[in-house]
Amino acid sequence: MSVVPVRFQARKSIEQVEEGNDLAPKFDDRGLITVVTTDATSGELLMQGYMNAEALQLTISSGEAHYYSRSRNVLWHKGATSGLVQTVRELLVDDDQDCIWLRVDVAGGASCHVGYRSCFYRKVPIGADFETQHVDGHVQLEWTDTEKVFDPKDVYGNAPNPTVL
Amino acid sequence: MSVVPVRFQARKSIEQVEEGNDLAPKFDDRGLITVVTTDATSGELLMQGYMNAEALQLTISSGEAHYYSRSRNVLWHKGATSGLVQTVRELLVDDDQDCIWLRVDVAGGASCHVGYRSCFYRKVPIGADFETQHVDGHVQLEWTDTEKVFDPKDVYGNAPNPTVL
Repeated sequence: MSVVPVRFQARKSIEQVEEGNDLAPKFDDRGLITVVTTDATSGELLMQGYMNAEALQLTISSGEAHYYSRSRNVLWHKGATSGLVQTVRELLVDDDQDCIWLRVDVAGGASCHVGYRSCFYRKVPIGADFETQHVDGHVQLEWTDTEKVFDPKDVYGNAPNPTVL
Repeated sequence: MSVVPVRFQARKSIEQVEEGNDLAPKFDDRGLITVVTTDATSGELLMQGYMNAEALQLTISSGEAHYYSRSRNVLWHKGATSGLVQTVRELLVDDDQDCIWLRVDVAGGASCHVGYRSCFYRKVPIGADFETQHVDGHVQLEWTDTEKVFDPKDVYGNAPNPTVL
């Protein structure tokens, strides 16, 4: 853990934000920035989450992924409960600096609270596939992963499910 | 383009949303869902955007990526201006169905309005790298891609830059 506090620059111009070396992230009106997390080895999309400024600072200084949980309203050191810590191999920022890309290694090989390797375990049929698979226009999801890496009950016990209807 | 209107299910239970075959996407209070777009071949993260219900329906029926532009407040058929159409190879949805993952092929090989292949052309040094590279705590971005695929002026002319400070 770095002892130097991580600081961000103020956003001054489009040129600075898009073509400069300053990290000047744009947090939205909730104080959050979108995060996309992929597996550093396979390239697979593992999850999409959010960081507040503190989570981004902690991720930069520690090299482990920290998020902000919107459902629990807390800073969230990923893996603190489940053990499934994400070690950040690369942290990138997009053109207008309102999105962070984490390329990570995951202890235990799973990132999804439902127990799958990735949160994205179902596919939507599109185009001609949609035509042949819909039921009265309703999309029918196809499963791309049916084997859970862990049983959520073992890992999270009676903690409330974060999914909000 | 499918002639069958694409329909979504209402969100009824956590089990339905997480473990079922229904596509029951969660649009936020702006009517939007987060979209993560990666290159179907390289796995590289190209962009992160948003869809409203219509954009998701059009993407499913046409097989080409449609988004909702928050800066311009319009439905956005990606590539309509630039020619850089995204052909969707796979469309996946996450556990709680508040995020869409598009795996695409991009005509012209570029997805970023600044002219780069990906919107993510700068890296944030983390951990020990941050320690040695910060300036008074301020993060200094490193460039991972310095060659533009196109000149934005040629493609977009005098259209306003979508980046918001």
